[in-house]
Amino acid sequence: MNSIQLDPQGRLKHFLGIEGLRRSLLLEILDTATSFLSVEAQVVKKVPLLRGKTIVNLFFEPSTRTRTTFELAAKRLSADVLNFNISTSSTSKGETLLDMLHNLEAMNCDLFIVRHEAGGAAHFMAQHVAPHISIINAGDGRHEHPTQAMLDMYTIRQYKGDFTPLKVAIVGDVLHSRVARSDIHALTTLGVAEVRVVGPTTLIPKGIETLGVKVFHRLKEGLKAVDVIIMLRLQRERMDSALIPSAHEYFQYYGLTEAALTVAHPQAIVMHPGPINRGVEIDSPVANGNRSVILAQVSNGIAVRMAVMAMTLGAIMEKKETHV
Amino acid sequence: MNSIQLDPQGRLKHFLGIEGLRRSLLLEILDTATSFLSVEAQVVKKVPLLRGKTIVNLFFEPSTRTRTTFELAAKRLSADVLNFNISTSSTSKGETLLDMLHNLEAMNCDLFIVRHEAGGAAHFMAQHVAPHISIINAGDGRHEHPTQAMLDMYTIRQYKGDFTPLKVAIVGDVLHSRVARSDIHALTTLGVAEVRVVGPTTLIPKGIETLGVKVFHRLKEGLKAVDVIIMLRLQRERMDSALIPSAHEYFQYYGLTEAALTVAHPQAIVMHPGPINRGVEIDSPVANGNRSVILAQVSNGIAVRMAVMAMTLGAIMEKKETHV
Amino acid sequence: MNSIQLDPQGRLKHFLGIEGLRRSLLLEILDTATSFLSVEAQVVKKVPLLRGKTIVNLFFEPSTRTRTTFELAAKRLSADVLNFNISTSSTSKGETLLDMLHNLEAMNCDLFIVRHEAGGAAHFMAQHVAPHISIINAGDGRHEHPTQAMLDMYTIRQYKGDFTPLKVAIVGDVLHSRVARSDIHALTTLGVAEVRVVGPTTLIPKGIETLGVKVFHRLKEGLKAVDVIIMLRLQRERMDSALIPSAHEYFQYYGLTEAALTVAHPQAIVMHPGPINRGVEIDSPVANGNRSVILAQVSNGIAVRMAVMAMTLGAIMEKKETHV
Repeated sequence: MNSIQLDPQGRLKHFLGIEGLRRSLLLEILDTATSFLSVEAQVVKKVPLLRGKTIVNLFFEPSTRTRTTFELAAKRLSADVLNFNISTSSTSKGETLLDMLHNLEAMNCDLFIVRHEAGGAAHFMAQHVAPHISIINAGDGRHEHPTQAMLDMYTIRQYKGDFTPLKVAIVGDVLHSRVARSDIHALTTLGVAEVRVVGPTTLIPKGIETLGVKVFHRLKEGLKAVDVIIMLRLQRERMDSALIPSAHEYFQYYGLTEAALTVAHPQAIVMHPGPINRGVEIDSPVANGNRSVILAQVSNGIAVRMAVMAMTLGAIMEKKETHV
Repeated sequence: MNSIQLDPQGRLKHFLGIEGLRRSLLLEILDTATSFLSVEAQVVKKVPLLRGKTIVNLFFEPSTRTRTTFELAAKRLSADVLNFNISTSSTSKGETLLDMLHNLEAMNCDLFIVRHEAGGAAHFMAQHVAPHISIINAGDGRHEHPTQAMLDMYTIRQYKGDFTPLKVAIVGDVLHSRVARSDIHALTTLGVAEVRVVGPTTLIPKGIETLGVKVFHRLKEGLKAVDVIIMLRLQRERMDSALIPSAHEYFQYYGLTEAALTVAHPQAIVMHPGPINRGVEIDSPVANGNRSVILAQVSNGIAVRMAVMAMTLGAIMEKKETHV
Repeated sequence: MNSIQLDPQGRLKHFLGIEGLRRSLLLEILDTATSFLSVEAQVVKKVPLLRGKTIVNLFFEPSTRTRTTFELAAKRLSADVLNFNISTSSTSKGETLLDMLHNLEAMNCDLFIVRHEAGGAAHFMAQHVAPHISIINAGDGRHEHPTQAMLDMYTIRQYKGDFTPLKVAIVGDVLHSRVARSDIHALTTLGVAEVRVVGPTTLIPKGIETLGVKVFHRLKEGLKAVDVIIMLRLQRERMDSALIPSAHEYFQYYGLTEAALTVAHPQAIVMHPGPINRGVEIDSPVANGNRSVILAQVSNGIAVRMAVMAMTLGAIMEKKETHV
């Protein structure tokens, strides 16, 4: 996937997935995000870096929360934003996806943020858009959610510093999680010591060990001595489909409680992509506790998305531009 | 409620209700609004006062009209605006209200405009948000709608000058009206000579006299010699719930007609929070007539909301900033 | 309609329809659009021409695509934009259309972009709004869609230069098409040599010859030697109402294929207002082929709408203002 994500000079053109990206590029994204985090701390939280650019949120799967983070990131870069909830737009009039894309290109839009229930959707679009357009994947099926992975990496580096000595556990519904997949690629690329996935056999994909992770089916074993715990959201649909018996029983075995946390490293941090299901995959005292960095993830998410937007559009942050 | 609405220096931090606010603060809001009304009259109707601030409309009860006035006020202050219609957002995924608030805080939002069907919702949020966040109540159940009250006060002062000699009648469904409640607090705090409420017994709350108002059940008695008439909107649900017999019959007894208006002061003004039900609580010739100041209320509403936004965010209007 | 569309100095005040406008005014719109097309080509695609102006999209008929083009045009002129999908707004609370308009006026809005299923809706509003408000018709029933016509004219001039020697064929459901009606008025006003309408008798209005067009019922005759082909979108409702037998059979007789195209002038261009129904009114190879200028129409649509917005609001583009 490298060939399509990067331009001939090796710079980020589209941001479709973590798989195949080199370590130095992931670090460049994190470093660029750091410069934007200082923008967030200013009284005027805006830079004119993308003024006059048009960024389009193309959400084929509804998600107010994720769309909002991209919208805020775009506005803080002074871009104009268009939001499309595609089920209500003209694709319902029988227009093809490619016709829709080409129309938006013709309107001189610059960047499409795409969320789609089909894995590979963002990749497909990147293959077909005009050369001046960039695509950022905001989640495609069970495939990847690369900006979530980068905000997770940002948060880990913020709290833990060096990646290489870390043991990281990803807990829950790994099977259906694009977050898990992107996190695994990012963590292994950044060279953490150990990546574990923890969950019931029905929710761990067969053969996931080939991605370089260790599989655990018992929570207390999976969490033993880890430095970072990434909890996954449990979709309610999973219970309906009988992959797990009930939310209550799931919580008994895989819910992160203060008790379960005792086996982890004393300084271990707890992460979650949100929105959290209190009492299903995580206990309220843990979500609210002093090891939880869940809200830091949210803050970092804006800066990371600003970084990826600016990088794919080739906009370079200069010191003099930090004040509008 | 004073303690939570004001900061330690006595300045407006949140704007949740009129009850308990001191007269000088209400006058400060009106005076600040005056400075913004001149902005509205400019060719470029914008000031950069809140540039880089993020204002979030959190509407748990749909209201295109009220949301629009806040959105316009925010944009004319150069703020970025996010609109949430909460029934469609992630609270439907089981996220708690507080988790949602904390997420928006983590995204570095600055001001939440809240409308909610439950009385006390805005107050609850103000108790739980981070110290850098302000809350403005855009209507909570039957409790308060303080920006509506302030635009009503602005309009009264604009047309009548001094508050103290005035007789004001509030007519209609006082029982269910947050507008009535906020108006009563504002009028009594500003020291008008007399506040009356007029309506059928089923629509006047028991014991409302304790707020310092006189109760009338006959329209012509209630309107006698008043300087200001504030008509309330009659919700259609009231007829279904048998609190009134029919819209037609209601109009016979409490609809404001030219005939009914003859008993008021010859210079009396007619107000309505909108949207009006022509032929239910107000006759068309009165709504369109030369005593109606209903559209002035709408214009003043933008300036009043700009004032409250700027004050809660601690932004001070300076002369040099009036041109972008 | 001239009297209401123009101000006393003969300048464009509202843009409601092409009918009755003089040739020089249509050319002025095209020339103004040219100046905005160069804005689109800039790195920063914005001019501050309408900063501080509030433009309201009032869409009583949903259309994401058309609304988007107006929204983009407004944002590239630095205006603030409000979007109303009227079925969900307060008109459902029983507010009248005029009350809604007067409220938006009172909020100091400047320009309303109106789409409505009823012919004459934009005209009605223009008759009733305050003097400082302008109205642009974004499609009213079967009546007119003047900005679509002007972007069509822009595209024709871009590819063909002089209008006077041209033969133009408009093909398809002319009966229900506001695009056809506006295009016919524009083409005849601009003095093209010949305007043809081509379609089955059920979809060609009786007496349309009085508008100065020739009627053809066979596609190959209608396209013979034409320089410009404007295909119309076939609404699926037409099949349900039995005006045509089926999409498949319609395509056999009136679908634009490479074969059908052979009778036209060798340099003929193919246009379509979009969204296209591939395999219904147009064959995919034609839509994607080198005679298709459909995407150029989309690009030109932004510039034309910027031009009309600026002209109705009396904003003049100066060279020094082209960079923000």
